[in-house]
Amino acid sequence: MTLHVGMLGYRFMGKAHANALARLPMFFPDAPETERSVLVGRDEAALAEAADRLGFAATETDWEAAIEEVDVLYNLGPNHLHPEPSIRALESDVHVLCEKPLAPGLEAAERMAEAARASDAVAGCAFNYRYVPALRYARRLVEAGDLGEIRHVRGRYLQDWLVDPEAPWSWRLDADLAGSGALGDLGAHTLDLARFLVGDRVGEATSVDGSLQTFVEERPVEGEDDTRPVTVDDAYGARVTYESGAMGTFEATRMATGHKNDHTVELEGTKGALRFSLERLNELEVLREGDRGFETVLVTDADDPYVDHWWPPGHVLGWEHTFVHENYEFLRAAAGERDEFHASFEDGLEAQRLLDAVERSDARGERVSVER
Amino acid sequence: MTLHVGMLGYRFMGKAHANALARLPMFFPDAPETERSVLVGRDEAALAEAADRLGFAATETDWEAAIEEVDVLYNLGPNHLHPEPSIRALESDVHVLCEKPLAPGLEAAERMAEAARASDAVAGCAFNYRYVPALRYARRLVEAGDLGEIRHVRGRYLQDWLVDPEAPWSWRLDADLAGSGALGDLGAHTLDLARFLVGDRVGEATSVDGSLQTFVEERPVEGEDDTRPVTVDDAYGARVTYESGAMGTFEATRMATGHKNDHTVELEGTKGALRFSLERLNELEVLREGDRGFETVLVTDADDPYVDHWWPPGHVLGWEHTFVHENYEFLRAAAGERDEFHASFEDGLEAQRLLDAVERSDARGERVSVER
Amino acid sequence: MTLHVGMLGYRFMGKAHANALARLPMFFPDAPETERSVLVGRDEAALAEAADRLGFAATETDWEAAIEEVDVLYNLGPNHLHPEPSIRALESDVHVLCEKPLAPGLEAAERMAEAARASDAVAGCAFNYRYVPALRYARRLVEAGDLGEIRHVRGRYLQDWLVDPEAPWSWRLDADLAGSGALGDLGAHTLDLARFLVGDRVGEATSVDGSLQTFVEERPVEGEDDTRPVTVDDAYGARVTYESGAMGTFEATRMATGHKNDHTVELEGTKGALRFSLERLNELEVLREGDRGFETVLVTDADDPYVDHWWPPGHVLGWEHTFVHENYEFLRAAAGERDEFHASFEDGLEAQRLLDAVERSDARGERVSVER
Amino acid sequence: MTLHVGMLGYRFMGKAHANALARLPMFFPDAPETERSVLVGRDEAALAEAADRLGFAATETDWEAAIEEVDVLYNLGPNHLHPEPSIRALESDVHVLCEKPLAPGLEAAERMAEAARASDAVAGCAFNYRYVPALRYARRLVEAGDLGEIRHVRGRYLQDWLVDPEAPWSWRLDADLAGSGALGDLGAHTLDLARFLVGDRVGEATSVDGSLQTFVEERPVEGEDDTRPVTVDDAYGARVTYESGAMGTFEATRMATGHKNDHTVELEGTKGALRFSLERLNELEVLREGDRGFETVLVTDADDPYVDHWWPPGHVLGWEHTFVHENYEFLRAAAGERDEFHASFEDGLEAQRLLDAVERSDARGERVSVER
Repeated sequence: MTLHVGMLGYRFMGKAHANALARLPMFFPDAPETERSVLVGRDEAALAEAADRLGFAATETDWEAAIEEVDVLYNLGPNHLHPEPSIRALESDVHVLCEKPLAPGLEAAERMAEAARASDAVAGCAFNYRYVPALRYARRLVEAGDLGEIRHVRGRYLQDWLVDPEAPWSWRLDADLAGSGALGDLGAHTLDLARFLVGDRVGEATSVDGSLQTFVEERPVEGEDDTRPVTVDDAYGARVTYESGAMGTFEATRMATGHKNDHTVELEGTKGALRFSLERLNELEVLREGDRGFETVLVTDADDPYVDHWWPPGHVLGWEHTFVHENYEFLRAAAGERDEFHASFEDGLEAQRLLDAVERSDARGERVSVER
Repeated sequence: MTLHVGMLGYRFMGKAHANALARLPMFFPDAPETERSVLVGRDEAALAEAADRLGFAATETDWEAAIEEVDVLYNLGPNHLHPEPSIRALESDVHVLCEKPLAPGLEAAERMAEAARASDAVAGCAFNYRYVPALRYARRLVEAGDLGEIRHVRGRYLQDWLVDPEAPWSWRLDADLAGSGALGDLGAHTLDLARFLVGDRVGEATSVDGSLQTFVEERPVEGEDDTRPVTVDDAYGARVTYESGAMGTFEATRMATGHKNDHTVELEGTKGALRFSLERLNELEVLREGDRGFETVLVTDADDPYVDHWWPPGHVLGWEHTFVHENYEFLRAAAGERDEFHASFEDGLEAQRLLDAVERSDARGERVSVER
Repeated sequence: MTLHVGMLGYRFMGKAHANALARLPMFFPDAPETERSVLVGRDEAALAEAADRLGFAATETDWEAAIEEVDVLYNLGPNHLHPEPSIRALESDVHVLCEKPLAPGLEAAERMAEAARASDAVAGCAFNYRYVPALRYARRLVEAGDLGEIRHVRGRYLQDWLVDPEAPWSWRLDADLAGSGALGDLGAHTLDLARFLVGDRVGEATSVDGSLQTFVEERPVEGEDDTRPVTVDDAYGARVTYESGAMGTFEATRMATGHKNDHTVELEGTKGALRFSLERLNELEVLREGDRGFETVLVTDADDPYVDHWWPPGHVLGWEHTFVHENYEFLRAAAGERDEFHASFEDGLEAQRLLDAVERSDARGERVSVER
Repeated sequence: MTLHVGMLGYRFMGKAHANALARLPMFFPDAPETERSVLVGRDEAALAEAADRLGFAATETDWEAAIEEVDVLYNLGPNHLHPEPSIRALESDVHVLCEKPLAPGLEAAERMAEAARASDAVAGCAFNYRYVPALRYARRLVEAGDLGEIRHVRGRYLQDWLVDPEAPWSWRLDADLAGSGALGDLGAHTLDLARFLVGDRVGEATSVDGSLQTFVEERPVEGEDDTRPVTVDDAYGARVTYESGAMGTFEATRMATGHKNDHTVELEGTKGALRFSLERLNELEVLREGDRGFETVLVTDADDPYVDHWWPPGHVLGWEHTFVHENYEFLRAAAGERDEFHASFEDGLEAQRLLDAVERSDARGERVSVER
C-alpha cells in the first residue's frame, strides 16, 4: 500500500516534512511507502517551483479538490487555515497531520477534536519535539520512576528575532491570522512537551496564572512606507498547577537577545532531575538518586530512541531528524501498523486549553481554572 | 578611630561577618579599624566558645546592654529578632548592619526604615550578592547602556535541602519565626539583586503576580518522636512588571533536586544580555551589540570591582569574599568616609514590599499593585 | 549532464555518502544531477539489500568492471583497498572521492597522488570535517586575520569503543588492512583539519615528535573461541612544529572512557583564539582582540557557510550534513563548475606524510623531519 | 606550643601564605598556634610596609639571622633562592615550606632533598593544588578504584600573560633566576598533580618526550629604553610513560590567548574518568562504571575534604583556600601531630627530575629515561 500525500503549505514546515518523507526509505525501510502527490497553495508560480524542489507530482490551488485525491493531508498552513481543511479531510477519512498550535483558538480546536473523534482517520498534531531522541529518553526515565514524584516542571523558549523594533510585520504578529504570538508559537510547544514528559505522573493542569506582554506595538510593513499594529504577545509567562500538586513555570519570548532557538525544559522530582536544551538537542542532563550532580548524557547510543536508524554513537543528529521520527510514527498509524499516534488532536486540544487559560488569566488579572 | 562592633548571632552569618572583619586589615588596609567587642546570644556556653573562635573580646546575653557599648551592631539573628534590636540601636545612633530579609513582615520593615530615617547612624541591610565582583561588573555594563533598554529580568534561586520529606523541622520553616520560606530566604535575594542591577533603568515594580507552594506539610523534629507543621512556602514564583514595562520572572525553591545554591540572574535588553550563576560566581556571561553569542568573562582582572585587593587574574574568589566587600563599604560609611551604603534599610523595605505583594497575590489569586 | 556514480563500500560510509547524494536535489538544487548507478562489494546478498536501501540501480562485485560504467567513483572500502581502484579510476579519467586516510601507507599515497596529477579527473579525499559550517566559519576568521599570528594549534580526538579489553577484533585493528589505528583513523582527521584551518598561515609541518601506544595486545574474534593480535596503535600523541614556528599538539585514542566522538580543535594566536568540539558541532567558541572571554557562537545563521540551504537560525544541523556539503562541492568540481576540490589527493598525501612521520618518530624515539 | 614563623618573600606568595596563617584560628581551631615572627627581604621600606600589612612582628634583611630565630621557614623567594636558605634551615632543624618548583635545577633539588633526609625537621614543597578539595576528592576516587586501571593522564596549564610581545621582561624570563619558564612555573604543578592523583596506581614516570618553545626572544625592560633576552621557554609539551604503561600528555604555555589560569587535568581509566579545571575549582566532572556521561559534582558538601571547616553546601571556595589547607597540614606535621607532609622535598625532587627530563629530551631531540 502506498499512501498518497497532499501537503498544504510549502515554506519552512513544508520543507521540513517533505524532507522527512524523502528520507524515510533509506533510514526507516519498514515505514509505509508514500507518494508526494499534490502540493497545495495559492501562488501558482511559487507552488510549481516548490513542488519541483520538494518532489511533489502535482500542484493544486483548491484544497478541497486536493483532499479528494489523497490518503493523507499535511496541514502546514498559517494557524487560521488549520481548522477547515483538517475537519474536511477527517470527514472524508483522510488522515491529517496538522502543524501546531492546533487552532487559532479554543473553539476551533474543539471542533477539530470533535471531527477527529468522529473520523476513522488518524489525526495528528505535529508537536515535533516529542520526537527528539533525548526527550523520549527523558520520558522513559520519568516513566520508570527515576525522578520519583515530580515537583517542579520548568520550560522556557527564548528567541530573539523580534528584538529589533524595525523587524518587519508578518502574519505571525496578527491575532486574526496567528491566534497568538510567543504563546501559541513557542509556548504551545513547551506546554505540550511538559505534558508529554510528565503528564502520566502529574495529571492535567488544574489552574493557570498567566501574563502576556507586547513590547513593540507596531512594526513596518516590508516594501511599504507604513506600519501595522502588532496584535499578539511578544512574550508570555505562566505558572501551572497540576493535579498532583506539581508546579509548572513557563515562559517564552521573541525578545530574548542572544537566544536563537533556546527551548529548555527542566524537571525536578523527589529522586532525580533532568535538564534539556534544544540548541544542544543530542544531550540530556540527568541526575538520579544518589548522584551528586547532573550527568551530561550524549543520547546517541544504539539503544536510544530512533538512534539505531542513523549513525554510530557520538555522531550527532540535527533538528530536522525529529520530523523524520514523527512522520515515521504518523505514517505507521495511518497505515494501520500502530494503534495510536501522539500528539493527537486531543493532545492538541489540551495544549489549546492551556493557551486559552493563559489568555483568560492575563485578561482578568487572576488565576483561572482550566475548563474541560 | 576604632569602631567597636557588637554582633547578635554567631552561627552561619556570624562566622561569615566575623571572618570579613578579620580579613579587612590585610586586604583592605584603608578600611576603618574595628574591634570585635561583644558577641550577643542566649546560650552562654555556645556563646563563649563562639566568641573565642570568632575573636570577640566579650559576650553578652542581653542585647540592650550590648548596644550601649558599641558603635556598630551586626544583627544576624533569626528574622523575628531583626526589628527591635535594630530599631533600638538606630535610636542610640549605633550603626546597624542587619541580615536579610529586613524583617519578618512589611509592617516591621516599615518601622525599621522609619527608625533609619530618624537616625544619624548608617542602616544597612546585608544583601551580600550586591558585592559579588561579577555582579558589580554587570551593573556597570547595565549603567553604561551596553544592554540598551531592559526588557526581561529573570531570577531563580534553586536549592535542594528540603527535597527529603524526612529533613528535620527548623525555625526557618515556621511563619512566626521566619516570616516566610523560600520567598523570604531566597526570593528576597533575587528581588533585591534584580533591583540593584536594573532598578535605575526600569524603575520600581508596579504590579506582581505571585504564588506560593508547600510540598511537605509537616516534618519531624530532631531528637523528638514528633512532627511540627511547616507554615512557610517551600517554593514561590512571581512575575513582576516594572515602571518601564520590563517584565520580571522570578522563582525559588528548596525542592530543586540537584541544585545546591544555584542562584541565577539573566537580563535581556534591546542591545545586549547578561547571565550569572552563583555556583560559578567568578564568571559573567555577556552579550553586547554586534556579538553573536555570550562571552564567558572571568571577572578576576585587576580593574574588576574589588579584585585588585586580592590575587592576580584567574585566581578565583569564593562566596565569602562578598562579605568582605560588603563590610568594607559598610564600615567606611559608618566611619563617615562615604555618604551612603547600599543595600540600605530603604532598599530592604522595598524588597519587603515585593515579598508582601507576592504573598497578597497568592492569597487572593490575582495580580496586585505594589503599595508604597 | 547527469553524473553516474559508482560506490565501492556500502556500510557506514556508504550510507553517509548515499544519503548525501539523495538529499542534494531538495537542498542544493544547483548541484549537478547524479544517478546512483552501481554499488560495488563482495557479498552479493548484502550488496543487493544495500543497493535497494541506498537507491542504487545495480550492483557489481568486480570493481574494475564498475569503473568502466561510471563518471565518478566513491572509494569507501577499507584502507588497503584505497590505492588500486582509485588509481585505475583516475587513469580512466573517472573522478574519485576516496575516504580518509588516503592510503594505508606513504608509498601508496604517493602513487595515488601521482595518478591524480596525471589525470584530468577530480581526485578528492573525504576529510568531511572541512565541511562543518562552524569550522569553515573558523577558517574565515583565521584567514581574515582575526586571530593574528597563530602560535598554538591543539587537536584531540577521543573515543571509547576499545576501552573494554573484550571488545572484539576487527579489520581496523590490523596493520595490514588498516595501515594504522587511532593515528590513521582519528589522527588523520585532526592533522588535516589543523592544516585546513591554519595551513595558509603557519605553513607546512617541518618536524614531528610522535608516540604510539597499544594498551590491549590481543582481542577475541567474534563468533570464534580465539583471539587475534592487535597490530595497530590504540592511541597516539604528537607535537608538530610548523614553518612559522607555531606549535601543534595532537592526540587521539580509542581508550578515552566517557568520550564517544569528541574531536576538539583549539587555536591560539597573537590576537584571538578559537575552540571547537565535534559533539557540539553547531557551536564555535571565539575570542577576538579586545574580548575578555570566549564567545559561544551558534553557527546557524543564514550567512554562515552552507546554512542558508537548510533551516532558520537556531535549528541545528547534524554530523551527516558535512557529507552533503562535501558531496556538493566535489560534484561541482567533477562537473567542471568549480576549479578545485579540497581535500584533494595532494591534501591526503600531506596528511599521510604526517602519519608516516609520527610512526617514524615513535619507532626511532626521536624527533623527525617531514620529508617531501 | 607556638610555632614561630619566618617568611622569606612577601609579594604574591607571601600574601597567600600570610593569609593562610591568619585564617587558621577561626576555621581550623585545632591547628597549631603560630606567630608571624619575622619577614625577610632586601628592600627595607617595602619590607616594613609588608610586615605591617601581613602581620609580622619584625623584619630582617639577613636570612641567615632570621633562621636562628624561628621554628619554621617559609621560603617564598625566587627559584634561585630556594636551595641555600632551605638547606641551612633544615640543617638547624627548622621546618621548611618551600615554594615550587623546589629548585632552579636538578642538582640543587638533589642537595635540598639530601638535606631534608638528614634533618629532623619537616620539609614541604608548596604544591598547593594538592589541597583543592575537588582534587583530593578526585584522589579518593582513584584510590578507591572507581576509575579502574589508569590509561590516560592529561594535564594542561594555559595562561595568556605573555601573549603581547611588549609585555615587559621579568626575573621569571631569565634562566639563571627562574631555572625554566612555563615548564618550571606551570608544568611543575601539573606533573606533581598528576603524580599526586595517580602515582600510587601508575608508578613513576619512566620515559619522557619533551619540547620547549620560545615565541618572543627578547622583551622590553620596564622603565628602560632597552630589551633583555628571554632565556626560558614560553611553552612546553611532554609525553610521559609511567611504569604501568599509562600515557601522560602534558602542556603549558603563557601564550594561550583567552586563558587566564586554566589548569586542567583529565584521567581516563578502564572503569571511569575525571576532569578538572582550576578556573572552576569547586567542580569535578566524574564518570563511573555504568554512567553514560560525566557528572558535574560541586565538591562543597560537608564530607568533602576540608569543606566542613568552611560553609554549607553550595557556598563556593576560592583559590586561596588551598593555602589554608596546605598550611594546616604542614603546621600539624611541624608540630608533630601527623607523621608526614606532602608534597615533601622528595616529591619536589621527583617533579624536578621530570622537568630535567623534559629539558634533556628537548635538547637532544629524543625520548629520554628519567634518572633516579
